[in-house]
Amino acid sequence: MIKIAIDAMGGDYAPKEQVEGAMLAIKKIADIEIVLYGDPRAIKKYLTDDTRIQIIESKGTIDMGEKDPISAIRNNRKSSMALALSSVRSGDNDAIVSSGATQALIAGAHILVGRMKQMKRTAIAPVIPTVSGKPVILLDTGGNLEIRPEFMLQQAHFATIYAKEILELENPKVGLINIGTEDGKGRQLDKEAFDLFKENKDINFVGNVEPKVVLDPPCDVLISDGFTANIVMKTLEGTAKGIGSMLKEELKRGFFGKLGLLLSVKNLKRFKKRLAPEEIGGAMIYGLKGVVIKAQGSSKAVGFYNGIRQAANVVRQDVIKKVSEVLEKEVE
Amino acid sequence: MIKIAIDAMGGDYAPKEQVEGAMLAIKKIADIEIVLYGDPRAIKKYLTDDTRIQIIESKGTIDMGEKDPISAIRNNRKSSMALALSSVRSGDNDAIVSSGATQALIAGAHILVGRMKQMKRTAIAPVIPTVSGKPVILLDTGGNLEIRPEFMLQQAHFATIYAKEILELENPKVGLINIGTEDGKGRQLDKEAFDLFKENKDINFVGNVEPKVVLDPPCDVLISDGFTANIVMKTLEGTAKGIGSMLKEELKRGFFGKLGLLLSVKNLKRFKKRLAPEEIGGAMIYGLKGVVIKAQGSSKAVGFYNGIRQAANVVRQDVIKKVSEVLEKEVE
Repeated sequence: MIKIAIDAMGGDYAPKEQVEGAMLAIKKIADIEIVLYGDPRAIKKYLTDDTRIQIIESKGTIDMGEKDPISAIRNNRKSSMALALSSVRSGDNDAIVSSGATQALIAGAHILVGRMKQMKRTAIAPVIPTVSGKPVILLDTGGNLEIRPEFMLQQAHFATIYAKEILELENPKVGLINIGTEDGKGRQLDKEAFDLFKENKDINFVGNVEPKVVLDPPCDVLISDGFTANIVMKTLEGTAKGIGSMLKEELKRGFFGKLGLLLSVKNLKRFKKRLAPEEIGGAMIYGLKGVVIKAQGSSKAVGFYNGIRQAANVVRQDVIKKVSEVLEKEVE
Repeated sequence: MIKIAIDAMGGDYAPKEQVEGAMLAIKKIADIEIVLYGDPRAIKKYLTDDTRIQIIESKGTIDMGEKDPISAIRNNRKSSMALALSSVRSGDNDAIVSSGATQALIAGAHILVGRMKQMKRTAIAPVIPTVSGKPVILLDTGGNLEIRPEFMLQQAHFATIYAKEILELENPKVGLINIGTEDGKGRQLDKEAFDLFKENKDINFVGNVEPKVVLDPPCDVLISDGFTANIVMKTLEGTAKGIGSMLKEELKRGFFGKLGLLLSVKNLKRFKKRLAPEEIGGAMIYGLKGVVIKAQGSSKAVGFYNGIRQAANVVRQDVIKKVSEVLEKEVE
């Protein structure tokens, strides 16, 4: 059995959607057990079936808008997030899924789960939707500003193995986010990363990729430093959101527009679903000793279920061990 | 009369759309004259009315995908782009509009028009569409990597004056693109720029802005270094394009979808128009001694007309002189 810890109190709709997502996962995935960390009374309101689900009581919470995430974690060791993270370090559980505050989760993962020794920096790697439907890994969206080309290479190795094992791609292609496609474009960091990636035989490097093809990229992994990739992700989000509301406004105009809208409702829903990140799962935090999945703060039950499924897959495929082995070999 | 030079041979649909855009501008704007630089025979094929329009013959062209834009300009002094740029320096014309290769236009503007002495770096500042319909200036999208906070401040001054004089905003708000809204976020450059902007009384600084509100920002000017702003613009473009094709695909599915699509055509066209950059005009190159407007490479006649209208406005409002005066005062 794979044991998954759930931070049941983190996220916009906690604990309702977390609990419902857990029950859904138990129904759909045969080889998992779930431990919900949180307020038992609040959890039991929604837990209508506790097959293979256990509750462990937590105290205190980590707010979503925490100014100082490190102190937040240090001063809340009994919070649902902290307890769930610690349970992965201790081996009580194999993975954790949380939709709590991102920066607190990263800080907490560092302190309570620990960094794998072969990776110098952690990174957050969400999977973004694309026109063709193929999932694309974007990293590092964690806002990590202290980056060196070697760290980016380690992240590219992780993403390559993740893409092979979890996305089932044979020879995943890696692209560097840049302002032009030509070799030698960009800042010093981009140029050095380019050279490192090009030399490396374990990475299928396709060169520089401009984000004007962000939803239809010629690769499976898009990588940049923590500032740039975060800007790409936020611009993507902002554009999608803005376009969504413009579209809605325009379609509502006039009689024929309204009628057309009515007839298109099903198609528009499917369109919206294609863009919804929670259909794909959460963002994995790369570079830790354990499996930590960050689900969107606004995740509903389905999003949470997808995060749990993803966590179980990562455990089942032993991704972290495989990454350590490849990085170990790199050092030699 | 305001005299506008047109690079009639640059762009995807040259010279047809350039010539038609020029004729449209002459019809709509009373106080302008136009000089078309290009191949007279090719131009005359489309020039059905030469009222207030003159042709000056050019030789050689600057390709769109030029690898070495500086040499391209230096070796093609008789090209339509080079001649049109030089005519602004000599005072024969008051402004130039070109939809030729961006990097060649920037390089050419440096060499042939010259940088204004108060600004250390040029910048490209397109106006992006927003949900509310208000135009927002994004800069620097020119890919300028050698940037210092002082240069960003100079660009913010330029944008502020442009927004006042051309967009007719009373007290334009300036925001710094960043990965979080809190003070002190981001890289060293972002922090230093934040402090400089905050201290400055001629700028209405609203602080850090995350691009997840890129189409609905709490400001009129969004500013970052040439790498980051270029990444924002390209991600915006890529997302809009990707979403457009997903939407089309989804709406075509099934009988009701197709019927709905049919009824929504007018509304969808208006939606597309709202997102089209050429409805707004071109991107002005800040920091030059003359008025240089870069229209999109794919501009049709209307896009070109809008670029000409914008160029005429910038000349009429004497924007460059006003910027010099403010920057002169800054130095004191």
